[in-house]
Parts: sequence; structure tokens; C-alpha cells
Amino acid sequence: MFFIADNLQITRPSVAKAFAGGDAAFFVELARRMERAGANAIDINTGPLPKNPQKAMTFFVDAVQEGCSLPLCLDTVNPFAMEAGLARARHGRPIINGVSLEPSRFKSMAGLARRFDADIIAYLLTPQGRVPSDSDTRLALAANLFAGLCHEGILPERIVIDPICPPLVWDEGHAQARAVVETLRLLPEVLNFPIRTVVGLSNLTSGLRTPRIARTAFQSAYIAMLCQAGLNLALLDIFCTEPLNAARACTALLKPGVFSWEIF
Amino acid sequence: MFFIADNLQITRPSVAKAFAGGDAAFFVELARRMERAGANAIDINTGPLPKNPQKAMTFFVDAVQEGCSLPLCLDTVNPFAMEAGLARARHGRPIINGVSLEPSRFKSMAGLARRFDADIIAYLLTPQGRVPSDSDTRLALAANLFAGLCHEGILPERIVIDPICPPLVWDEGHAQARAVVETLRLLPEVLNFPIRTVVGLSNLTSGLRTPRIARTAFQSAYIAMLCQAGLNLALLDIFCTEPLNAARACTALLKPGVFSWEIF
Repeated sequence: MFFIADNLQITRPSVAKAFAGGDAAFFVELARRMERAGANAIDINTGPLPKNPQKAMTFFVDAVQEGCSLPLCLDTVNPFAMEAGLARARHGRPIINGVSLEPSRFKSMAGLARRFDADIIAYLLTPQGRVPSDSDTRLALAANLFAGLCHEGILPERIVIDPICPPLVWDEGHAQARAVVETLRLLPEVLNFPIRTVVGLSNLTSGLRTPRIARTAFQSAYIAMLCQAGLNLALLDIFCTEPLNAARACTALLKPGVFSWEIF
Repeated sequence: MFFIADNLQITRPSVAKAFAGGDAAFFVELARRMERAGANAIDINTGPLPKNPQKAMTFFVDAVQEGCSLPLCLDTVNPFAMEAGLARARHGRPIINGVSLEPSRFKSMAGLARRFDADIIAYLLTPQGRVPSDSDTRLALAANLFAGLCHEGILPERIVIDPICPPLVWDEGHAQARAVVETLRLLPEVLNFPIRTVVGLSNLTSGLRTPRIARTAFQSAYIAMLCQAGLNLALLDIFCTEPLNAARACTALLKPGVFSWEIF
């Protein structure tokens, strides 16, 4: 499992405060800690960035790259910020997070992915930006989005499908969580390609003040279910060790060849 | 998920010592603690009991039933001890642990299950007592064993199939662990019956001095995989909370109808 740390989010008060104060050292140190905790890439979730988007993204990218040598996952709907971040990324292949069938971002993000030869996360949202309610709709969206991106000149191996993990607090949230698992299981056959997939695990338990034990138990159990269904990448809180360990254990159990405990 | 506590095992030094000293209070207290920890039944694993088998089993059964009001899972190859335990069990329906196609125990255990109308755990071992190496062999054994037990007059709903979880330290242990998952997934279709299943989770990590973090991570991830594949009962260390929580979370995620966090 490839872990993308989701801890750098502008919606977190500590992050917003450090950004407002231009505190680059905060982000250098955060990046260092995320790498040490086991991250394989760092998500930079800046929000929409209405003011000076290029400058803001460049600030984050530079600070994170000073703190660690991991590839970046650039998480913004702002195409100018995305472009600035991609131009600045220097550790491995960056990931665009992301594109969907929404007309407002399909062309711009697909164009950037092609230009920078970046990986691109493709959300299974409707063209209206809504979360689909079942696995059949997700699979139909995946087929459209995959074909559309290939048509734009993106290599299939650059595409990473995100079936959109719902919060469990939503009506039918757990039925949707099951639909995500089902989608992962069926995607390679539907697309006739060994497509890579990603799930945003923190979404599962967001929106409710649940006890920590419940959050970690639900995330750990769910990531094992996802892993078994073929998940390749997970976007998650890299400082919450239980789901990481569950994913590592699951990956070791599912791997062909010689088994090893040495992952712990 | 129905949890059977496996903590009362004669192979544990504290248990062996208390038994040798006739210390009933030890077992009363242990039973109390197992019930408090979330057990739905208590496994009494006495070993072969070459001397005074009836007396020994009666001692355990009485002490455990004094400490808690849970049904018992009687875990011995000795048919005399099994009979004595079944005769003494008074809290709900006892479970015979267990039967296999091995001639030495098939007839005797099946006869006791029928006589006491007990649940019975049926191990997918070969008639020679060996652990099968793949899921196809397990499914073939399950079909034979299920048919054989039904022929002996056991109701199908009394039968609980145990596909035999291998220790990961075995050669190909993790491939076998995957075969167990596959077996669980296919059993209801192969038997054409919504058969109940059980797995001995502690086996997975037995036989090696692994760090606790690895044991709990492997058990937690594996029980989630088993749960998703349809497992109904788990025999496990009831004082190790992480796998219990993983199973509870998984069960809540998989349950149709309204979702609730209230399990934690």
C-alpha cells in the first residue's frame, strides 16, 4: 500500500495559522514528521486559494520539499495553483488531486496532467459534482472518465481512480462504503486494465465527534476490506498508526511469494 | 460476530497450575473477566485428559458456569470428557469443539451432538488429520463432512465449519490464510446452505515470538478479511481488544439497515 499523508490541510486550524503567518518552518517540520511516520507521498490540500494562488502553492511546495524527499500530491481545484505546484515539484512524479467529469475541471486538469506527465486522481463524481449512490453508477462513471482521460492523451498507467469514500454519518453512509469496496473489486474488469485506485480514508469517520477508539477501529477494519478488494493507494492521517498497520498486515497477507513479519 | 474466548487452555502455565492445584476460584474469576471483556461463549480447552477425564471436565465446567452465564464450547478429543461436560452444561446450547472426518472422533462426537442437541464445530481436516493445502480441498472436505454429519442425524443449523486457520510461520502459511478466506466465501454456495463458520484466530500468529504490534495488526486485519468473507464466529484471545474492535467495526459496516457507532 502506498500511503499519501493527508495531514497538510488548510482547513486545520494549525495549518491555516502557520500559512497566514508565512511560517515555512512549520511545514518543513510537518513534512519531516510525515516522512518519518511512513508516508510515501504528501498531499498538499490548499483549498480553493482565491488570492495569489500560484504564490501560495509555491510556498507550500517549497517548504514541504525542504522537509522531505517525497513526491507531492497537489490537492486544489485551482488550475493556476496546480500549474505552479507542478512546475515546482522536483521529487519524483507529482500527483494531481484531482479531476472528475465536472466540466469546470476536466479539461484544465487533464491538460496539466498531460503537459507535466503527472499522475492524476480521477474522482467518480457525476458531471454535476455529486457522489454517486451505488457501485453501478460508480463503475459507469469510471468507464466514462477513464475513456475521456485516455482520449485527452493521458496514459492509462497515470490514472488513479478514487471511488469516493463517504462519511459514515451520511444517510446510507455504510451502504456507500460497501459500494466503494464493490467498485474497487470490479474496476479492473470493467476497464479491462489493471487500474490503480485510491481512497480518502479520513472521510469515513469525518463529521462526527466519535471516540478515538471507534475512529481507528472503523478506519482499520475498512482499510483491510479495501486492501482485500485491491486498493493500491490510501490518503490518510499518517500519524494514526492503527490503519497503517492494518494495511501493512493486509498487504503482507495478500502478497504472493515469501511471507515476512519484517514490516513491523 | 460471535466471540468465543480461547483463554482457558490447559497449555497455558497459569491454567495448568490452577488446575493442578484444584483452584476453582481461579476459573470462576477468569470466566467472570472473559464475560466482562465481551465473550459470547467460553472455550474450555482441556487437552486430551488421560486421567479422570470426566472429573476434570466437570471441574472446569462447574467453575466457569459459576463465574459467568455464557454457553460453553467444550474443546477436547476425549469423548468421555466431552460427554461429562455436555451433561453438566446449563447456560444455553453448548458447542462441541469438535469433529472431523478422522474416524477416531467422527462417530463419537457426532453421536454426542445428536444426543445433546449441541452445536458442533466441524474441522476441515483430512481423514488422516492433516490440514489441507488449498481451498478446493477444504471445500471438498466440507461437502463430505457436512453430508456425513447430516446423515448422522445432526441438523444443518447445528454445524459450524472451521476451515482451519494456519500459523503464518508455516511454509505457505499466508497462502493458506488466503485459502481460508476463499473457503469462507464459497462455502454457502458449495453446501447450498447458509452454513455458520468459525476460525481460531490465535493460530494465525502462534509459534513465533513476534512483537505485540505485529500480532494484533495481523489478527485485526485478518479478522476484517474473514468478516467480509462471511465469518460468523471467532475463537480468540478475548483480552486482546484490537481484533475484537476490528470485527465489531466490520460487522457494523457490513450490516444492512441503519448504521450505528454505538458498538464502541
